[in-house]
Amino acid sequence: MLGNMQQHTLGVAALIDFADRNHGDAEVVSRRVEGDIHRTDWRRIAARARRIARWLDACKVGQGERVATIAWNGYRHLELYYGVSASGRVLHTLNPRLAPAQLAWIINDAQDRVVCFDATFLPLVQAVRAQCPSVAHWVLMSDADRMPSGDDYYYLENYEVLLHAQPDNLYPWPQLEAHAASSLCYTSGTTGNPKGVLYSHFSTVLHAYAVALPDSLNLSSRSCVLPVVPMFHVNAWGLPYAAALTGAKLVFPGPALDGKSVYELMEAEAVDVAAAAGVPTVWQMLLDHMDAQGLRFSTLQRTVVGGSACPPAMMAAFRERYGVDTIHAWGMTELSPLGTVNTLKKSLLALPQEEQLARRRTQGRTVFGVDMRIVDSQGADLPFDGHSPGELLVRGPWVVQRYFNQPTDAVEDGWFRTGDIATIDPDGYLQITDRAKDVIKSGGEWISSIEVDNIAMSHPHIAAAACIAMPHPKWDERPLLVVVRKPGVALSAQEVLAFMEARLPKWQVPDAIEFLDTLPMGATGKVVKHQLRQRFASAALETA
Amino acid sequence: MLGNMQQHTLGVAALIDFADRNHGDAEVVSRRVEGDIHRTDWRRIAARARRIARWLDACKVGQGERVATIAWNGYRHLELYYGVSASGRVLHTLNPRLAPAQLAWIINDAQDRVVCFDATFLPLVQAVRAQCPSVAHWVLMSDADRMPSGDDYYYLENYEVLLHAQPDNLYPWPQLEAHAASSLCYTSGTTGNPKGVLYSHFSTVLHAYAVALPDSLNLSSRSCVLPVVPMFHVNAWGLPYAAALTGAKLVFPGPALDGKSVYELMEAEAVDVAAAAGVPTVWQMLLDHMDAQGLRFSTLQRTVVGGSACPPAMMAAFRERYGVDTIHAWGMTELSPLGTVNTLKKSLLALPQEEQLARRRTQGRTVFGVDMRIVDSQGADLPFDGHSPGELLVRGPWVVQRYFNQPTDAVEDGWFRTGDIATIDPDGYLQITDRAKDVIKSGGEWISSIEVDNIAMSHPHIAAAACIAMPHPKWDERPLLVVVRKPGVALSAQEVLAFMEARLPKWQVPDAIEFLDTLPMGATGKVVKHQLRQRFASAALETA
Repeated sequence: MLGNMQQHTLGVAALIDFADRNHGDAEVVSRRVEGDIHRTDWRRIAARARRIARWLDACKVGQGERVATIAWNGYRHLELYYGVSASGRVLHTLNPRLAPAQLAWIINDAQDRVVCFDATFLPLVQAVRAQCPSVAHWVLMSDADRMPSGDDYYYLENYEVLLHAQPDNLYPWPQLEAHAASSLCYTSGTTGNPKGVLYSHFSTVLHAYAVALPDSLNLSSRSCVLPVVPMFHVNAWGLPYAAALTGAKLVFPGPALDGKSVYELMEAEAVDVAAAAGVPTVWQMLLDHMDAQGLRFSTLQRTVVGGSACPPAMMAAFRERYGVDTIHAWGMTELSPLGTVNTLKKSLLALPQEEQLARRRTQGRTVFGVDMRIVDSQGADLPFDGHSPGELLVRGPWVVQRYFNQPTDAVEDGWFRTGDIATIDPDGYLQITDRAKDVIKSGGEWISSIEVDNIAMSHPHIAAAACIAMPHPKWDERPLLVVVRKPGVALSAQEVLAFMEARLPKWQVPDAIEFLDTLPMGATGKVVKHQLRQRFASAALETA
Repeated sequence: MLGNMQQHTLGVAALIDFADRNHGDAEVVSRRVEGDIHRTDWRRIAARARRIARWLDACKVGQGERVATIAWNGYRHLELYYGVSASGRVLHTLNPRLAPAQLAWIINDAQDRVVCFDATFLPLVQAVRAQCPSVAHWVLMSDADRMPSGDDYYYLENYEVLLHAQPDNLYPWPQLEAHAASSLCYTSGTTGNPKGVLYSHFSTVLHAYAVALPDSLNLSSRSCVLPVVPMFHVNAWGLPYAAALTGAKLVFPGPALDGKSVYELMEAEAVDVAAAAGVPTVWQMLLDHMDAQGLRFSTLQRTVVGGSACPPAMMAAFRERYGVDTIHAWGMTELSPLGTVNTLKKSLLALPQEEQLARRRTQGRTVFGVDMRIVDSQGADLPFDGHSPGELLVRGPWVVQRYFNQPTDAVEDGWFRTGDIATIDPDGYLQITDRAKDVIKSGGEWISSIEVDNIAMSHPHIAAAACIAMPHPKWDERPLLVVVRKPGVALSAQEVLAFMEARLPKWQVPDAIEFLDTLPMGATGKVVKHQLRQRFASAALETA
């Protein structure tokens, strides 16, 4: 028997209509590529989103067709989030950090019809355009009087000119199926071609509710959110949607992520929560600036760090010097991205400060909507005991079922394999210990390469380190540690080994140390360990 | 084009599994009918919910069949919320305040197969049982050794005995459609037969997300919630579900709603949020007890009042004497029930205290998921200007489409008519000014009967008052005020009229005053104004 409630679809259109009608005067403030500060509000964002929809209608961009962006965090990008998806097209956010060939490959795989981009990325567009036959419109997101002149740019259209030509009065958003596609984001796979994740209106809205919950990012109509996490990176953790759902104020930093610019924007706009993804370089620049200038936060309460663990020293600096909580979150492109957020349960608030801190350093607890399991190499469930590492499997309505343009499902028995190795403790706190492909399987036991990396990087003379698995005839795999010395210091392999031996069980100590000048880095700022493995594999076999 | 995310259904089973797995040791504390305090946790609630599912399997209660409760707020009721709905049956919460004939009518309309009830309601069950042929099992929710003896009770089964006979190990909750029915609640209509609202798993989960949001009840794993609002009253505002979704601690007061019992439970269990529906008698008893004993709250931060406005004096007492915020909420059985919650937007926090208070006295703002319109008597949209009253229309995924057992839809053009007259201000704050059937239509203008009631009740000698519409040959309708004097006071119609004339525009002053000893009250504690209209209608026409 079915219930008798309304089968009313909540999608991206419902989000922007809600913000327009109930939070029309809540502000959206952006630092623009041009360098100035731009102020608007949800009412005007909604009006311009309607103009975008009318322009796409005029261009005959069909329902479900892809409209791409190469853009910083800013109001125009936000307008596209709503104008494109609410009108039934698919917003495809491109990562400008990719090489031109990769970008062109992705544009072709997605068959993008339109690409809207910030002036910063004009050279990138110039480089890829000839290889992208599906794209009928290249739209520069700048003021009308800032278009580049010259024969090279004959094909460009101007965003403001296109919008100006359209009316912004009532636009009848199409009635879409709940599971209609709303946006598309590609993972930057370190191996193989990038894979697209095609989100739906349903998954986006449900995820936005989860993001706003008190135990997640805790967003309300009194919040002022600064997303440092790029809008081309898994929809900026869903913040553009969760902000509309709650009527929060949004502050966009644009390209200016140096400590001074971020600090001044936070202070001027009374930001209370800021979210970043990836290696927290932005936070380090911010802290350096504040330390040097003797500054204090007036309003900031929380920073959320996803994608990689925040170094304990940085967490302590935020907490002790500036009174700001650092909240770990964990997610993936395939999870929209929210998987876990680290807020403490009531029962843990009674623990000694040290134990609370130990919990806060984990990736946190899952939110309702994501189910988690950890399994051993045979696929058998492992207990949530805090010390049994296994591969993390997830499922839920905002988890990917199948990659874009792929014929087969990405799940097995309903569960998506994350490729992460993790433990989960009895309170549900997740600790990612390694990537499945990076973990070192030595004599039937697993050595976390990340743990070895972190210990090595705590050495005062080491700038970067990466522990990798080398094939071994007896133990199957053994760890090798690749080290980058800090400039101007002397450091021998013996010294590194002695340092590691003092801090690791004997069987986890790397068999050998190699020195390099730099480590290979991927587009999201992570070390590409498989390149290191290829480089050192033959040598390791010889010495074994 | 459809998105590629998992079509994973989130229902009541997902809620209890989540609480079991991630918040198993979060407590559920109940004052029982027996008077003692009972302690359990989400893990044991889940285990007993699985026993209920197995018992219903054994009884051959089919998918979609109704299992009813007549019960106070307590852990057994919570177990039934999950065991019944998660296993695919429909939980039907009966209101014990109804007269036996009404209760029997509802049980028959719902075709309940099982009725589980607290010992308090044994006389009620004895009175209705013979008229309820669909019910195969009458289950007394008491300890096994507390069953009544005697021939009259041969038909009773004991809840603990039934559960004890079942194993509590893993139970494969059935895969249900997203919109499968989960629970059923009847409105206590003052006219006509009661009407059932059949909630779905989908509407229940979405509503639970909305209830937990920071701008709603703000629930997290650190919350401790005391629902005074009965679990037979629109699923206790969804709190039993929202608590599982967040891992909150639940504290149930059972039947002991006197000031001393509620205060002691709040203090003993460190309650931080308490929610009540209907006339806030419970809060008055609580304040009286605290005033008399000179007590203070150690942990309580918020009280939520839904169903009727909290008197300003009571809001002030909570705030000024006890540091507790009173938060208005508005809802209906047809809305699951959440429509609006009164939390202040950022922009309003800068207003003078008096203006903030004025906003806090309204019913609040809508949460994402509920759309609202107000329309005039011709159905034309009225502006959100804060002073144009119109009938409130709502729509959304947790709004009713059709009443249970009714052949036709309850919505027109996708909108449900609430029967409430309201204004909405530019910030989205809703103010219910009257019921559509109670508003007095005088010469083309509307007089809010509730406003007249409230002014009359501010007279020190008036215990209760109800303003009703009387037919009038010239003005169509004119107000009549029915007054109940406080015991032992003298008060004339002239004195009342003079009091009203000083406080109302001339055309809104009642034409006549009538005195009664009591007012007719419905099952939810509201005055049944249509009975008063019937009683006074002929007299009014004669005197016109």
